Amino acid sequence: MPDYRVPVRDMKFVREEVLDFPGLWQRLPGCEEVTAELASAIYEAVAKLCEEVLAPLWRSGDEEGCTWNPEGVRTPEGFKEAYARYVEGGWPALTGPVDYGGQGLPPSLESVLNEFVGTANWAWSMYPFLAKGGRLTVTAHGDEELKRQYLAKLISGEWTATMCLTEAHAGTDLGILRTKAEPDPDGSYRITGTKIFISSGEHDLVDNILHIVLARLPDAPPGTKGISLFLVPKRLPDAEGNAGAPNGVSCGSIEHKMGIHGNATAVLNFEDARGFLLGEPNRGLNAMFTFMNIARIGTAVQGVAHAELALQGAARYARERLQMRAAKGPANPEGPADPIIVHPDVRRMLLTIKAFAEGTRLLIQSLAYEVDLSYLAADVEERQRAEDLLALLTPVAKGFCTELGFEAASLGIQVFGGHGYIREWGMEQNLRDARIGMIYEGTNGIQAIDLLGRKVLGSGGEMLAPWLRRIADFCRDCAGEAEMAAFVEPLAALVKEWEQLTRDIGARTRKDADEMGAAAFDYLMYAGYVSLAYLWARAARVAQRALAAEDADAEFYRAKLQTADFYYRKILPRTRTLVAGIDSGAEPLMGMAAEAFLLE
Amino acid sequence: MPDYRVPVRDMKFVREEVLDFPGLWQRLPGCEEVTAELASAIYEAVAKLCEEVLAPLWRSGDEEGCTWNPEGVRTPEGFKEAYARYVEGGWPALTGPVDYGGQGLPPSLESVLNEFVGTANWAWSMYPFLAKGGRLTVTAHGDEELKRQYLAKLISGEWTATMCLTEAHAGTDLGILRTKAEPDPDGSYRITGTKIFISSGEHDLVDNILHIVLARLPDAPPGTKGISLFLVPKRLPDAEGNAGAPNGVSCGSIEHKMGIHGNATAVLNFEDARGFLLGEPNRGLNAMFTFMNIARIGTAVQGVAHAELALQGAARYARERLQMRAAKGPANPEGPADPIIVHPDVRRMLLTIKAFAEGTRLLIQSLAYEVDLSYLAADVEERQRAEDLLALLTPVAKGFCTELGFEAASLGIQVFGGHGYIREWGMEQNLRDARIGMIYEGTNGIQAIDLLGRKVLGSGGEMLAPWLRRIADFCRDCAGEAEMAAFVEPLAALVKEWEQLTRDIGARTRKDADEMGAAAFDYLMYAGYVSLAYLWARAARVAQRALAAEDADAEFYRAKLQTADFYYRKILPRTRTLVAGIDSGAEPLMGMAAEAFLLE
Repeated sequence: MPDYRVPVRDMKFVREEVLDFPGLWQRLPGCEEVTAELASAIYEAVAKLCEEVLAPLWRSGDEEGCTWNPEGVRTPEGFKEAYARYVEGGWPALTGPVDYGGQGLPPSLESVLNEFVGTANWAWSMYPFLAKGGRLTVTAHGDEELKRQYLAKLISGEWTATMCLTEAHAGTDLGILRTKAEPDPDGSYRITGTKIFISSGEHDLVDNILHIVLARLPDAPPGTKGISLFLVPKRLPDAEGNAGAPNGVSCGSIEHKMGIHGNATAVLNFEDARGFLLGEPNRGLNAMFTFMNIARIGTAVQGVAHAELALQGAARYARERLQMRAAKGPANPEGPADPIIVHPDVRRMLLTIKAFAEGTRLLIQSLAYEVDLSYLAADVEERQRAEDLLALLTPVAKGFCTELGFEAASLGIQVFGGHGYIREWGMEQNLRDARIGMIYEGTNGIQAIDLLGRKVLGSGGEMLAPWLRRIADFCRDCAGEAEMAAFVEPLAALVKEWEQLTRDIGARTRKDADEMGAAAFDYLMYAGYVSLAYLWARAARVAQRALAAEDADAEFYRAKLQTADFYYRKILPRTRTLVAGIDSGAEPLMGMAAEAFLLE
Repeated sequence: MPDYRVPVRDMKFVREEVLDFPGLWQRLPGCEEVTAELASAIYEAVAKLCEEVLAPLWRSGDEEGCTWNPEGVRTPEGFKEAYARYVEGGWPALTGPVDYGGQGLPPSLESVLNEFVGTANWAWSMYPFLAKGGRLTVTAHGDEELKRQYLAKLISGEWTATMCLTEAHAGTDLGILRTKAEPDPDGSYRITGTKIFISSGEHDLVDNILHIVLARLPDAPPGTKGISLFLVPKRLPDAEGNAGAPNGVSCGSIEHKMGIHGNATAVLNFEDARGFLLGEPNRGLNAMFTFMNIARIGTAVQGVAHAELALQGAARYARERLQMRAAKGPANPEGPADPIIVHPDVRRMLLTIKAFAEGTRLLIQSLAYEVDLSYLAADVEERQRAEDLLALLTPVAKGFCTELGFEAASLGIQVFGGHGYIREWGMEQNLRDARIGMIYEGTNGIQAIDLLGRKVLGSGGEMLAPWLRRIADFCRDCAGEAEMAAFVEPLAALVKEWEQLTRDIGARTRKDADEMGAAAFDYLMYAGYVSLAYLWARAARVAQRALAAEDADAEFYRAKLQTADFYYRKILPRTRTLVAGIDSGAEPLMGMAAEAFLLE
């Protein structure tokens, strides 16, 4: 089992040296006192919790899993105690509003917590992280009464939350969901229906769970414009505001899944359960997007998590496992064989994993930077620009990072050879846990359509332009730096190609509506590879400058530069295949009759 | 769970229409009576066994798994009865030599059995298939006495066999294995040592298991030139030739694995176990290659199996699952939504799976064709040519098909959305079962080095040339066919590129020994994609001719042509990335210090 060591050094490189969060905070109202030192102290404290409490429950949580009985769900041994430690440490309150007991720190810090805690134990992390989504939803859409009753409980960690969208017949297609909400005279609603695939839907970590539920009001218009959002507590608050009488919510069963066994994926039956409207009637899908966008970035982090675990496991194994000799002669002549890290093909796998782990961290933190801006910038236009950029990059991050995390997890197995397939080493669990990331919070196919159809083409290219401009500006800014040429020249060409590719798809889509969907997935991956190339170039530039200044940490910066070089030479050529695939259009996909896919 | 229907129609297309096995058999001595009708009857009989007996045990075998106790291993419920049915049907004898009770049919028929039975239940199939490898090894390397005692038992299916190579410290690197063999005065040997990862290593299907074991004789030279091969029965034959007294072999434990739960992966302890030499002393690795090459083609078949299961599950689901509307307007206006097969991105996934399932079947059967030639051709030179081509294509098939099978299995999950992650649907089991294919029988990295280093560069390109010539000849042969131009033009260009790529790598490797290993994996995948392009072009030509002749089965041929077109336009561009990666050489891999992969 990989002994997870939290990569604090790399997180500081990304947040302080590449992205300059401390500089950002200096100019954001209310953040002036958030320094690099304070942030570092937080990273170190999270790291301690992760290494001492959460990571040790990763394998055992998988083996034991959750168990259901008619009274509820028992989480694996140690999960409840770990959650108590988490609450004790004040982690649920980190970025919550001060008025309701929060610490009021910049929201981007959640992404650090998310990565470190998630890598230590993804299944466990989903209990507090869904609570965070619930907290943000109630903050954004709850009235004062709901906030007063529920917000402080989520911020203290006393209660958790869930996101209840899916029904058996309605997954991607929320427009056809059937759960209904009937108004009561007191202003509340009676919710009736069955929701499936509810992560953290029932458990024994806390005594109350707040379900955030999509349902239809009587006479609501059909489709997505007739969906409203409700807060439905598992137990209704009593006079003191504590968990009181049971509400009409029961957990019918939990799923038997490929991975994330430590998290209960529940079937929830709502029978005349009392619920409270969040936001406007029939505008529930918009309100839910507060939760969903957070969940999507949170899921993108899962890509980093599985790549990082793969890296830590595989790099250590490859340095210790002795098999065969290096092509140029023994590297370990005293031993019976050389460590497998001498072999070029093992290095190919390790560098791919490393470029993905560190690269997706860069991408996630770039989004986190925009999150801070979108919440806290003084200038309303700056907030809007950050929100627009987030809207563009969220589906890229969710889709691209989870694909890369899965690939990295599979390579992590491969480096271990036969041992990678054996449960006790943990590498196969890493793959099983990773696989869900490409599916939940909107499959990656849906992310691709959101990116290309809704955001890029839907805005006539306007939402894409600022991102392309930012990359092009960076290239121009590096113009005089000879040592950056190997990065900047291909990057500048890719920006132009990206623009042209987008125009071509737009033109084809105007003639044939299927062209967008045919290009979407390849386009999302293309956007991911080019965006990551931009971020790797920025990281390389920082590393070059540190090396030129003879920084004491030269080993770190040299590795960073070598990984950037690997990314450009061995990974970025994947764009060639993607462009060719996109250019070949919809016709090779749409010609076949539905029955011809499998004649029987 | 996918309800597996054996693709007899497609197997007949591949074997009769594309490859013309019946025509081949007409000219092979001893096969004159093997007709298309006889072969068809065999396919149908296997299909019945697969659908009625083996496929129904696929999910339950995974859930139950194997259980170990000090007396042995219990296989999942129904496995033993299914094996009895298999033996009753005479399947272990299908291609065995008539002198020892076999039916003497052409060996290529094993590949059909392998695919159908393996797709129905891979974990189960590994019991009889390892026995087949044992049978071929004893046939090739056993003396008359060993054949007399053991061969008939393997052919009747009364006993099974295993392949015992790996030790805890020696996986890929067999040269450092430690198991020892000490000669006894009676000509037998005492084998002592511990072997791990032994598939089908202990079980309750039969009363005796013949272990084929690599070990070292006293004073054997170090490394791979000091390894000998032994037959070590679990129980020694009694006077009647039946399983008698226990030999010194015990199963210490079985592994807890990611998948193939129904197959026992054993730790085997040999303590002064009586063994019998197979082949020459110190030539054991060569003798073992008889088994290993069979096992590698058998593992390549695993790629077909998982792609086929993914196709059957996902295509049926995509026709039934209703979500969202087609981009061009409702395809199912009466229903609440359209079947997801209308969406281009779902079609992209399904067509990828389909192109992989049918394409890898073409590749495996092309190898099977050479197997028949290599065993049965009257002309010794023709046999040798077939053997050489097999030596070239075996690592391609093993590496390439298992990579594609894994990708197809993952796409199969994705088409199912959230349900793909749930155990009862079986798609996640398909992925877990598939993952081992890339590892065992030599990891795909090892296959790549075998292909590029040992076979292609090791022969100065001579082993590659006949395959390239065959593809080039095909292209020339199609020159006048306008409707083949879309296939033949890119294919002819790829053959030239493949030649040049090989020369370039050779030149670089002469300067830097790491260049071969750096290129190897990408080269293997490139070889796979181009070889499959050749086979898809051949399939397309057959389909075009059938359509031109207004064949009644037009729907089948049209789908074949569309899949070939999809392969050329959406999959074959992957070669662009591979070539760019190969061209960037070893330097991006070899520069980083071992400790810099993970600084801690």
